Amino acid sequence: MNYIGIDLGGTNIKAAVVTETGKIIDELSCPTHAESGAEAAINAIASLIEKLAGKYTVSGVGMGCPGMVDDQSGFVVYANNLHWVNVDVRTMLREKTGFSVRLVNDANAAALAEALVGCGKDADSLIVITLGTGVGGGVMLNGKLLTGYTGAASELGHMVIVPNGELCACGRRGCFEQYGSATALLRMTKQAIERNPNGKMSEIMKKYGELHGSIPFEAADVGEQSAIAVVEQYTDYLALGIANLINIFFPEKLALSGGVAKQGEKLLTPLREKVSHMTYGYPYRKRHTEIVLCSLGYSAGMIGAALFNAAE
Amino acid sequence: MNYIGIDLGGTNIKAAVVTETGKIIDELSCPTHAESGAEAAINAIASLIEKLAGKYTVSGVGMGCPGMVDDQSGFVVYANNLHWVNVDVRTMLREKTGFSVRLVNDANAAALAEALVGCGKDADSLIVITLGTGVGGGVMLNGKLLTGYTGAASELGHMVIVPNGELCACGRRGCFEQYGSATALLRMTKQAIERNPNGKMSEIMKKYGELHGSIPFEAADVGEQSAIAVVEQYTDYLALGIANLINIFFPEKLALSGGVAKQGEKLLTPLREKVSHMTYGYPYRKRHTEIVLCSLGYSAGMIGAALFNAAE
Repeated sequence: MNYIGIDLGGTNIKAAVVTETGKIIDELSCPTHAESGAEAAINAIASLIEKLAGKYTVSGVGMGCPGMVDDQSGFVVYANNLHWVNVDVRTMLREKTGFSVRLVNDANAAALAEALVGCGKDADSLIVITLGTGVGGGVMLNGKLLTGYTGAASELGHMVIVPNGELCACGRRGCFEQYGSATALLRMTKQAIERNPNGKMSEIMKKYGELHGSIPFEAADVGEQSAIAVVEQYTDYLALGIANLINIFFPEKLALSGGVAKQGEKLLTPLREKVSHMTYGYPYRKRHTEIVLCSLGYSAGMIGAALFNAAE
Repeated sequence: MNYIGIDLGGTNIKAAVVTETGKIIDELSCPTHAESGAEAAINAIASLIEKLAGKYTVSGVGMGCPGMVDDQSGFVVYANNLHWVNVDVRTMLREKTGFSVRLVNDANAAALAEALVGCGKDADSLIVITLGTGVGGGVMLNGKLLTGYTGAASELGHMVIVPNGELCACGRRGCFEQYGSATALLRMTKQAIERNPNGKMSEIMKKYGELHGSIPFEAADVGEQSAIAVVEQYTDYLALGIANLINIFFPEKLALSGGVAKQGEKLLTPLREKVSHMTYGYPYRKRHTEIVLCSLGYSAGMIGAALFNAAE
């Protein structure tokens, strides 16, 4: 059984034919042109579906979308990066392609894929956290995605961890997203460079030509105090949010993806140490949540969207 | 089919025979005498089981315990109020009664009961939050309790919402429990009375003879500013924690129990208003989490412990 999985992003639309065991057998992509509106993007999606469905026998189509989706009604409820509000995606795509497309949040799709065929395939429960422009999240419990009432659950980045803290795009202040995302790391790095404009971080920034999430980690490696302080500040907040989620779900695994996760053990080692001290009853528990990296890379969204059809 | 449900508390042990539809047909209780240690308490529990099992045919026994339990191994891992660490409850009770007792956290038991036969019986998902000495929590998703890896999930009170905030018994600082519990409300009330010792709250406290969670609500009712400020401060934090949980789970219902919940609409009305402004994508969602009161009162723990046998 094959499915088409679509990953609708702010910049590109990716589509793949995925086997029921999560293998990608073909792949296409095109630009989203978000500025041209929903109808144009949906035409582009329909065209990708038609091209792939013309070459392969497929049993269903799933699409991962940023923002809030309602898979019961088939609507994208709200996707602020795309400027979509209540778009009847299922009806539009059914008219154009004949497929009744299943909808899933993009971070949820990634979690589903990682749980079924990626880093969590042996775990009974997995939380995936993406550390990118924002903080996205997906929760898989015993092979089932936590989707909540109408399919818009697990906005893990929109847990407030600092009352009256940094303003978030969601309207609240102090969301985890404002302290744990790549964007937050860049903000902390920028502030530290401004305080110490002739330090190692400024020098490394010249190499990149712009702010980059690797700067504080590279400068910390050579012992610069201001960089060590940035890494410390960022990982403190990241650990706080992650420990909150462990106390709430106590999953077997928690996996990180997104730009910041590329730091690998430089990030994971201090993070694991901090989280252990913040987890409820840690000294008494015989087993602990394992913190790992996601393994499917950028394909996770497409694979998860495709397998969403099979998983229900 | 009948089950015995036990609710092991710091002060009393309650036991009931419960039908598979959640009706209590008989009930006993005795003091816990926590100071006498685990063995004595387990003897008392065994005696309650034997008395009830002598009168009724029962198909299983479930016990709700404070703290961390591991239903796989049958151990109470850690219950700080009882000073129990790694107590092999199942083996001890099996030797004494013949029953292989299922273990569940007490707040989880309450959530299970409320979801199956109480305030959440028509809802596909329910979070129960108990506002007592601490903040307990249980999460029911599609008829199944969220128990996590080894059965110690949903420590909803141990989500940090104020970095470096009030010290919590769990060792972290700034836990939701330190801002949303009845204990937190009493602390805020005490501080306000100390700042304004001749106000309405002092007067009402004389009526109770001690600090009481109703004091700020009663004084706010007659317009005292310092009391209104206490209620505002408390409900702000409570709303923050609740909105975090809604953003994470987006359940159909969220129900409150415990001492503070007795304020009913005085608490719920401002809380609902605050939470609505804090919930992710609220203006775009067609359906929202309904915030209600629990309906089973002090029996919820026993009913849930009993039904835990049937629910798996």
